[in-house]
Amino acid sequence: MEAYPLGTRRVAQIGIVVRDIEAASAAWARLLGCKVPKWHWTEAYEEARTEYEGQPTPARAKLAFFRLENLDIELIEPDDQPSTWRAWLDEHGEGVHHVAFEVDGMAAHTEALTQAGLRLIQRGEYTGGRYAYFDGASSARAVIELLENDRP
Amino acid sequence: MEAYPLGTRRVAQIGIVVRDIEAASAAWARLLGCKVPKWHWTEAYEEARTEYEGQPTPARAKLAFFRLENLDIELIEPDDQPSTWRAWLDEHGEGVHHVAFEVDGMAAHTEALTQAGLRLIQRGEYTGGRYAYFDGASSARAVIELLENDRP
Repeated sequence: MEAYPLGTRRVAQIGIVVRDIEAASAAWARLLGCKVPKWHWTEAYEEARTEYEGQPTPARAKLAFFRLENLDIELIEPDDQPSTWRAWLDEHGEGVHHVAFEVDGMAAHTEALTQAGLRLIQRGEYTGGRYAYFDGASSARAVIELLENDRP
Repeated sequence: MEAYPLGTRRVAQIGIVVRDIEAASAAWARLLGCKVPKWHWTEAYEEARTEYEGQPTPARAKLAFFRLENLDIELIEPDDQPSTWRAWLDEHGEGVHHVAFEVDGMAAHTEALTQAGLRLIQRGEYTGGRYAYFDGASSARAVIELLENDRP
């Protein structure tokens, strides 16, 4: 692990919470001059093991990804179950929810971000990896996501 | 100009509005394991020619930039004059304000974004270039900034 909390200086993803993933995807596809990507549901609790504010939650979201030259833009339409996505949408409305960094060693980086004053708000698993969101209110002034993808 | 409104699929910058640029810069420097960058004021009206919601405004902001591997993170501490930065901070609090794309041909891209349903909310000049912010509420679901830098 690099000797600083994020361990990387490359932004992997910008995550945007939306109310209607099909409308938002069509709009981004128009702006970027590309095809509308297919959206998919995040996995069910049995696979995702989503925890929000320390509690298990059945929350899921529809996700769509735009692969830009230097990062991904992720659109997220949450369901109505408790999650940082749903809370964000209810509190702030549609908009940028997080800035994501890909790390190697989720546990060590989670500890390092916590030491740096960021608070873990949600985490979960997906096929081939895992994520964690951190409240950066008193640090980055933005929600930071860590992503870890298992090596094939 | 590329035949799609943004004309590029590379994100140049993520802009974060903050209340205290020194505290926010110190936090990001810690997360990224780098030096704290010096902040500077945006230029005064005579140079910046800032327009917010179609009206001239003396608004200025303190800016600090982190040069990451694949884009810049810009921290913005607005003054109290009318601007999209100040309005964002008052309405949403600290957080990601915009996603920026660098274009070639500000007028043509402004027209293209307007045609795509984004509304120009603020624009201005800086030494060597100009910027424009667009409300993407009914499109990108985020504020989009266009940057144009004059070729040396």
